[in-house]
Amino acid sequence: MASDVTFDFERQRRIGLSEAVLCEGKSPAQIGEIIGLARARSSRLLLTRLEPETITLLAADDQAALDYDPRSHTAILGPWQPPAGEARVAVVTAGTSDLRIAREAIRTLAFYGVAAREIADVGVAGLWRILAHEEALRRFPVVIVVAGMEGALFSVVAGMVGGVVIAVPTSTGYGVAKGGETALHAALASCAPGLVTVNIDNGYGAACAAIRALGLHARQGSKAPR
Amino acid sequence: MASDVTFDFERQRRIGLSEAVLCEGKSPAQIGEIIGLARARSSRLLLTRLEPETITLLAADDQAALDYDPRSHTAILGPWQPPAGEARVAVVTAGTSDLRIAREAIRTLAFYGVAAREIADVGVAGLWRILAHEEALRRFPVVIVVAGMEGALFSVVAGMVGGVVIAVPTSTGYGVAKGGETALHAALASCAPGLVTVNIDNGYGAACAAIRALGLHARQGSKAPR
Amino acid sequence: MASDVTFDFERQRRIGLSEAVLCEGKSPAQIGEIIGLARARSSRLLLTRLEPETITLLAADDQAALDYDPRSHTAILGPWQPPAGEARVAVVTAGTSDLRIAREAIRTLAFYGVAAREIADVGVAGLWRILAHEEALRRFPVVIVVAGMEGALFSVVAGMVGGVVIAVPTSTGYGVAKGGETALHAALASCAPGLVTVNIDNGYGAACAAIRALGLHARQGSKAPR
Amino acid sequence: MASDVTFDFERQRRIGLSEAVLCEGKSPAQIGEIIGLARARSSRLLLTRLEPETITLLAADDQAALDYDPRSHTAILGPWQPPAGEARVAVVTAGTSDLRIAREAIRTLAFYGVAAREIADVGVAGLWRILAHEEALRRFPVVIVVAGMEGALFSVVAGMVGGVVIAVPTSTGYGVAKGGETALHAALASCAPGLVTVNIDNGYGAACAAIRALGLHARQGSKAPR
Amino acid sequence: MASDVTFDFERQRRIGLSEAVLCEGKSPAQIGEIIGLARARSSRLLLTRLEPETITLLAADDQAALDYDPRSHTAILGPWQPPAGEARVAVVTAGTSDLRIAREAIRTLAFYGVAAREIADVGVAGLWRILAHEEALRRFPVVIVVAGMEGALFSVVAGMVGGVVIAVPTSTGYGVAKGGETALHAALASCAPGLVTVNIDNGYGAACAAIRALGLHARQGSKAPR
Amino acid sequence: MASDVTFDFERQRRIGLSEAVLCEGKSPAQIGEIIGLARARSSRLLLTRLEPETITLLAADDQAALDYDPRSHTAILGPWQPPAGEARVAVVTAGTSDLRIAREAIRTLAFYGVAAREIADVGVAGLWRILAHEEALRRFPVVIVVAGMEGALFSVVAGMVGGVVIAVPTSTGYGVAKGGETALHAALASCAPGLVTVNIDNGYGAACAAIRALGLHARQGSKAPR
Amino acid sequence: MASDVTFDFERQRRIGLSEAVLCEGKSPAQIGEIIGLARARSSRLLLTRLEPETITLLAADDQAALDYDPRSHTAILGPWQPPAGEARVAVVTAGTSDLRIAREAIRTLAFYGVAAREIADVGVAGLWRILAHEEALRRFPVVIVVAGMEGALFSVVAGMVGGVVIAVPTSTGYGVAKGGETALHAALASCAPGLVTVNIDNGYGAACAAIRALGLHARQGSKAPR
Amino acid sequence: MASDVTFDFERQRRIGLSEAVLCEGKSPAQIGEIIGLARARSSRLLLTRLEPETITLLAADDQAALDYDPRSHTAILGPWQPPAGEARVAVVTAGTSDLRIAREAIRTLAFYGVAAREIADVGVAGLWRILAHEEALRRFPVVIVVAGMEGALFSVVAGMVGGVVIAVPTSTGYGVAKGGETALHAALASCAPGLVTVNIDNGYGAACAAIRALGLHARQGSKAPR
Repeated sequence: MASDVTFDFERQRRIGLSEAVLCEGKSPAQIGEIIGLARARSSRLLLTRLEPETITLLAADDQAALDYDPRSHTAILGPWQPPAGEARVAVVTAGTSDLRIAREAIRTLAFYGVAAREIADVGVAGLWRILAHEEALRRFPVVIVVAGMEGALFSVVAGMVGGVVIAVPTSTGYGVAKGGETALHAALASCAPGLVTVNIDNGYGAACAAIRALGLHARQGSKAPR
Repeated sequence: MASDVTFDFERQRRIGLSEAVLCEGKSPAQIGEIIGLARARSSRLLLTRLEPETITLLAADDQAALDYDPRSHTAILGPWQPPAGEARVAVVTAGTSDLRIAREAIRTLAFYGVAAREIADVGVAGLWRILAHEEALRRFPVVIVVAGMEGALFSVVAGMVGGVVIAVPTSTGYGVAKGGETALHAALASCAPGLVTVNIDNGYGAACAAIRALGLHARQGSKAPR
Repeated sequence: MASDVTFDFERQRRIGLSEAVLCEGKSPAQIGEIIGLARARSSRLLLTRLEPETITLLAADDQAALDYDPRSHTAILGPWQPPAGEARVAVVTAGTSDLRIAREAIRTLAFYGVAAREIADVGVAGLWRILAHEEALRRFPVVIVVAGMEGALFSVVAGMVGGVVIAVPTSTGYGVAKGGETALHAALASCAPGLVTVNIDNGYGAACAAIRALGLHARQGSKAPR
Repeated sequence: MASDVTFDFERQRRIGLSEAVLCEGKSPAQIGEIIGLARARSSRLLLTRLEPETITLLAADDQAALDYDPRSHTAILGPWQPPAGEARVAVVTAGTSDLRIAREAIRTLAFYGVAAREIADVGVAGLWRILAHEEALRRFPVVIVVAGMEGALFSVVAGMVGGVVIAVPTSTGYGVAKGGETALHAALASCAPGLVTVNIDNGYGAACAAIRALGLHARQGSKAPR
Repeated sequence: MASDVTFDFERQRRIGLSEAVLCEGKSPAQIGEIIGLARARSSRLLLTRLEPETITLLAADDQAALDYDPRSHTAILGPWQPPAGEARVAVVTAGTSDLRIAREAIRTLAFYGVAAREIADVGVAGLWRILAHEEALRRFPVVIVVAGMEGALFSVVAGMVGGVVIAVPTSTGYGVAKGGETALHAALASCAPGLVTVNIDNGYGAACAAIRALGLHARQGSKAPR
Repeated sequence: MASDVTFDFERQRRIGLSEAVLCEGKSPAQIGEIIGLARARSSRLLLTRLEPETITLLAADDQAALDYDPRSHTAILGPWQPPAGEARVAVVTAGTSDLRIAREAIRTLAFYGVAAREIADVGVAGLWRILAHEEALRRFPVVIVVAGMEGALFSVVAGMVGGVVIAVPTSTGYGVAKGGETALHAALASCAPGLVTVNIDNGYGAACAAIRALGLHARQGSKAPR
Repeated sequence: MASDVTFDFERQRRIGLSEAVLCEGKSPAQIGEIIGLARARSSRLLLTRLEPETITLLAADDQAALDYDPRSHTAILGPWQPPAGEARVAVVTAGTSDLRIAREAIRTLAFYGVAAREIADVGVAGLWRILAHEEALRRFPVVIVVAGMEGALFSVVAGMVGGVVIAVPTSTGYGVAKGGETALHAALASCAPGLVTVNIDNGYGAACAAIRALGLHARQGSKAPR
Repeated sequence: MASDVTFDFERQRRIGLSEAVLCEGKSPAQIGEIIGLARARSSRLLLTRLEPETITLLAADDQAALDYDPRSHTAILGPWQPPAGEARVAVVTAGTSDLRIAREAIRTLAFYGVAAREIADVGVAGLWRILAHEEALRRFPVVIVVAGMEGALFSVVAGMVGGVVIAVPTSTGYGVAKGGETALHAALASCAPGLVTVNIDNGYGAACAAIRALGLHARQGSKAPR
C-alpha cells in the first residue's frame, strides 16, 4: 500500500531547516509513521503542537524516544542539548498568556543550537516595562515579539531597535481580539518600518525566520542537524 | 407635500447636544432645507463632512451664512467665537494624515465652547514624541487620540494617563489598514483599561463624548447653544 | 529562571486603575503566581473571567483568600466592602442573558468603591420598559448599557440622557448576532451623538471607563486601592 | 443572432408581480432592447436604479415613453396614475439620506396601484419623533421601515405594531456602517418578533413583499397591470 | 434584590405576539424565574432553543408544567391543543437536516392556533420534488421555506407563488456553507421579487412574521393567547 | 405522518450520479430512515461524513449492511467491489493531514467503479516531490488535488498537466489557514488556467465532478449503480 | 535593462492552453511589450479584460493587428476564424448583466476552435425559461453557467444534466450580492453533486476548464494554436 | 500655530532607517511642509506612493529638488547615486502587474545604498521560469518575493533557498484575489518554514526588513544616510 508520508529529508541540506512535524490534524498513527521513518534514518526531528493527550497515544518506545516539553507542546527526537553561549535572539512577550507560543519559538531555536533570551509580560499598558529593556534589546540581531490583543508592542519594539523584528500575533483575547486577527493586522499595518510577521500563533515559523536571518545555513554548513 | 426633515430641535435641551447635520449622503437640496429650518428658528447648527464641492451648490445666502472650515470639512451656522480659556481636552494624532478628523473634533468642541489643545504627529514608531507630552497629557480630564494604521497609540496613551481616553480610529493606511478596521479593532482589543472608542473617522462623535464626560449638560444649563 | 510575570504594580498610582488579571488564557499555575506576588506585597487584586472550574484548581489558601462571585466570574483578593452611598453609575441590560457581563461591570465598580444601580431586561421590543426609567437615568453622570443581538438599546438610551453613555456589546444571540459583532457595530454606527463603546463582553473595561469619567483618579488621590 | 433577453412576461399572471428591470449593470443598448420588447407587446414596465445619466443615452422615443422620477431613480413605461384611496402601507425612514430608497418602494407600490404614506426622518436618537406616529402606524397592515447606520428603528417599530414590518437596510453611513451591513444585521438579529428584511437598499423588493402581504395577487385577479 | 427579569406581558395585547423565551444563553435559574412569573399570572408561554439537557435542570413541577417537543427544542407552558382546520401556512424544507428549524416554526404557529403543512426534503438538486407541489403551494397565503447550503430553493419557490414567501436560512452545511451565511445571502440577493428573510435558524421568527401577515392581531382580537 | 425524506431515486438515471447521504447534521434516526428506504428498493447508497460514533447508534442490521471505511468516514450500502483496471483519476495530496478528504474522493470514485491512484504528501515546500510525479500525472485525464494551508499545490499541478484539474481545499491549518478559506481562495485566484474547485473538504464533490468529466453518464448507460 | 516579461510560450505544448494576457493591472506599455514579443515569434495571443479606453493607448500597428470584441473586452492577435461545426459547450446566463462574462468564455473557446451555444437570461425566478432548455442541455458534454446575485441557477442546472457543469459567479448585484461572493458561495455550497466553480467573473477560466474537460490537449495534438 | 508635523529625524540613528514619507493620504501642503523641514536640515528623504498628479501640485523648487521615478511612484530628496557593487537582495515577481511594488522595494534599497537584482514574471503556472533561477537565488542572503493572485510563488521560493525570504503580497487580481488578501493569507499560511511577510503592496517595508536582515545598522554606523 502507498505510504501516507513523503518526507522531505533533504530539506535540511537545501535550506538549512529540516522538515518539522505539525502534529495538529494528524492521527497518532500518522505521527507514529513519521517518527518511525526518522528513527530508521537516525534523523533528528522536531514535533510541534503535540498535545499532552496525543503523546500518550503513541507507541511506548516512541514516547520514550521523545523529549517532550509540556509548556511549549513540542517534542524533540534524537540527541540534543540546550544551546550554550550568548543568546542571539530575544523573545519578548506582551502577556503571560502568550508564553506557550514564545516557548515554541525558543524550543525551535534550541533544536537548531541557538540560544535565546525570554523577556516576559512587558505589554504597552505599562510602558516602563519594555523601556527598561530598550538598551538590552538593541544588542540582539533578531528580536521576536509575541503579542495578542491589539498587538501594540510590535510597533513599539520595531521603533526602538535596528535588528530584525519578527512579530508573532497570538490568538490571546476575546471579542474582536478572538483568534488573533487584530494582532496580525496590527503587525502588518505597523507604522514602524521593516517589521515582518508570521501566521497567528506560529512561534515555530518565527524561529525559522530568525535562523534564516542569522545566516546559519550559509555559515554553519555541516554543523546543522542531520 | 410631506417634508423630508423632522428636525430634533429639542435634543439640545434633552441631552446637551444639538442635532448636527451629517452632510455626506444628503443632496444639496436636503442640506438647504435643513439650513432653512434652522435659520427660520434662529438656531445654531453644526454641519459635518461637508465637501468643498458641495458647499458651492448651496444657495448663495446659505453659503454666506455659514462659517466653513476646509481643513475639517465642517461649517457652523449662527454666531460663535473661538473658545477662550484653558484647554480642557487634548487631541492627539499619530500622523499628519489623521488631521482632518482631529480637526473635526476640535471644531465640534469649539461649537460647544470647549477649548482643545492639538498635539500632532506623535505615533509610536518614534516613542520619544509621545513621551515628551506625557506630563502635559496627565493634566487633561479628557484625551482624544486619533490614529489609523495599527492604532498602537491608543493603548500607549491609555496606559499613561488617568483621564477619559477616547479613541478615534481613522481610515488612514492601505492593505489590511484600509478603511480603518485594524485601528478600530486595536482600540477595542486594547490591553489598557478603560479605553473607549467611537466609529472610524468619527471626530464629531468623540467630541460629543468629551462634552458628555465634562458634564457640560448638567453644569452649564442655559449656557448651551440655542 | 525568568518569571512569567512582570506585574505593573505602579498602574494604580499612574492612572488610578490597578492591573487586573484576565484569567481566560492563563493556566492555574500562572494565576497562582500572580496571586502570590500580590499577597507578598499585600496588594489588592481583581480577577476577571475566572471560571468556576478554574478556581478549584488553585492552591487552597489562594482559594480561601479570594472573594469569588459566580454570577460575574470575578474574584477579589484583599479587603473590600460593598460600596455605600448613592449609586453614581447605572448599568442597564437589554435581556437576562446579558447579566453576567453587567455584573462584571458592577463588581469592578465595587472594587473601586463606586456604587451602581442595575436596571435589567429593558430591551426595546417593549419600549415602555426603558421609558419607565427615563427620568431616573437622566440623573446619572454615567450610564453603562449592556446589550447583545441588534443592540438597539444603545442608541435609545444615548438619545435620552446627557451623561456619559458606554455601550457594552455582548455575544448574546445566534445567526448574524453570534459573537456580538452586530451589537458592537450598532454601538459604533449609532445615530445618537457621543455614544462610546468597549470590546464585546468587556464589562470590566466599561467600569474602568466609568471610573475615568467620574474623575476618581484626580479627586480621590490616596483613597485609591493599594 | 440570439437575443440577450428572455423576458418573463408570464410572471404577472403567475405571482402577481411583473418582471421589473434592474438597470444597474445593464448597458443602454440592453435596456433599450427590453423597452422595445415591452412596447411591442404593449406591456407596462417598471425600471429601477436608472441613473439620470443613463436615461439620456436611451433612444429619444424610448425616453419620451418613460415617466422618470429622479428622486427614486425609477421609470415607468406605459399608462399609470397615482393611486387614489387610503394608504395601506406606511413607509418610515430614519433619516433624510434614506429617502431615495424609501421612494423606490413608494413608486413600486404606486406602479401596482397601492397608495402609501411616507413618514420621514424619525430615527431613534430623538425617540419622540417615532412615538408621535405610534397610533397611526398601528392602523397599517404593512409598515416598511427604511434605515441605515445602526438600524435601531427596525426593532422599535416592530415592537410597537402588529402588522407586517419589513426592514430595508440602507447603505447610509460610514466606518462600520458603510455599505449597510450593520443595519442589515440589526434587522436580522432584532429582539422584536416577526420582523422580516430584504437586501440592502432594496426598496423595490420591500414593496413587492408588501404587495404579497396585502394579498393583491389572489384578490385583484384581472385588475393587475398587463 | 432587583429581579433579573422585566417581562413584557403586554406584548400580546400590543402586537398580537406574546414574549417568548429564548432559552439559549440563559441559566436554568433564569428560565425558572420566568416560568414562575408566568405561572403566577396564569400566562401561557412559549420557550424556544431549550436543549434536552437543560430541561432536566429545571424544578420538577416546572418540568411537569411544560409540554416539551424534543424534535423542535420548544416547550409550551399552559393549556393548548393542536390547531384544527385547514393549514394556512406551508413549511417547505430543502433537506432533512433543516427539520428542527422547520418544526420550531410549526410549533410556534401551533402555539398561536395556526395549522401548517410540512413539505420536507424537496431541494432543487431534484427539481421534480418541488415542482410536484407547485399547485398546492399556490393556494397558501404564506409559505415558509427552510434551507441551508446554497439556499437555491428560496428563489425557486418565490418565483412560483404569489403569497408571502419567508426564507429561513439554516446553518446546515460545511465549508463556505458553515453557519448559514451563504443561505442567508442567497435569500437576500434573490432574483425573485418580494422574498423576505429572517435570521439564520430563526424558525420562531418566521412563524411570527407569518402571523403578522395573516393579520391575526387585527382580526382575532380577544381570541389571542393570554 | 409526513416522511422526513423525499429521496431522489431518479437522480442516477437523470445525471449519472445517485443521491448520496451527507450524514453530518442528520440524526441517527433520520439516517436509519434513509437506509431503510434504500434497502426496501434494493438501491445502492453512499454515505459520507459518517462519524465512527454515529455508526454505532444505527440499528444493528443497518450497521451490518454497511461497508464502513473509518479512514474516509464513508459507508457503502449494497454490493460493490474495488474497481479493477487502470486508474483514470489521480488524487494528489499536499500533506498527510489531507488524507481523510482524499480518501473520501477515492471511495466515491470506487462506488462508481472508477479506479484512482493516490499520490500523498507532495506539498511544494519540497518541490522535488511533485516534480517526481510530473510525467505520470500528465497521463491522467483527471487530477484531483487536495491541499490545505496556502494551497500552492493547486497552481503548480494545473501549470504542469493538460487534463482536468479539480482543487479540493481542506480545512487543514491554523491562524489564517483555519477553516480552509485561504486554500479555497488560492484555488479560485490561481494563475494557472482552467483550474476548477469545489467546496472546502468536499472530496465527494470532486469525485462526482471527475465522473462527469470522464463522461461516464453518457457512455456507461445501464452499467450505473441502481 | 531586464525585461518586464518572461513569457511562457511553452505552455501550449505543455498543457494545451497558451498563456493569455490579463490586461487589467498592466500598463499600455507592458501590454505593448507582450504583443511585440508575440508578433516577433508569430505566436497567436488572447488578451482579456482589455478596456475600450486602454486599446486606444496602444501603438497604431498593434491596434490594427488585434481583433477586438467590445462586448467581451477580449482581443485576439493572429489568424483565427469563428469555429465551425456543432457546438460542444453550452453557455447559460441567468440575466442580461452576465453577458460580458459569458462572452469572454465564448471568445476564449472560439480562440481554441471550440463552438459554443449561448442561452441567455434564463434565471430561476421564471423557472420555465431554463426548463425549456432542459433536453437540449443534456446533450452537451460541458455546460458553463454564468450567474450573479444568489446564483441559484448553478444548482438547478447541475441537478438536471450529467455533463460537466462549470459555474462562473459574476459580480452582478448590489447589497450582499455586491462583488459576487454570494454567487460564488452558492456554487461552492451547492446541493447538486459534482458542480465545479472558477473565480468571480472568470469567463476565461471556465472556458479553459471546458477545453481541459473536452480532452483537446490529448486528442488534438498539433492542431492546437501555435 | 501648532505644526502638523513632528518629524522623527532621530530614527536613522536609532534604528538605521530614516523616517520616510507615505504621501498617500497627505495633502500637497502637508508634503510640502515635510520637504521644507528636511531641506532646512539638509536631510535626505524618501517619499513613497507619490502619484504623478500629486507631484505637479508641489512648489516648483520642491519639485526640482526631487528625483522622481514614475515606475515606482517614489521620490528621493537630496544627494544619492545608484548603488554599485554586487546585488545583495533579489527581488522576484510573479507577474508584470507586480512591478510597481517590486520597484518601490528596489528604490528603497537604493536609497540606503543596497544593490538589488530584479527577476520578473516567473509565476508558478510555468514552473520552469523560477526553476531556471534556483541556483542564482540560493546565493542571496535576502530574497523579496512580490506576488498577487494566489501567491503560490512565496512557498515555492521559500522551499528552495535558505536565505531570508520576505513576501510582499500585491493587490493584483480580481474576484477573491481583489485587494491582495488571498496572496497575504497564502504567505502567512505557507507550508515552507521561516517565510515572513509584510502588508499588501508594501514594497517599502520589505526593503526596510531586508536592510535590517543585512545588519546594515550595526555594521555601517556613520555611513548611513543623514
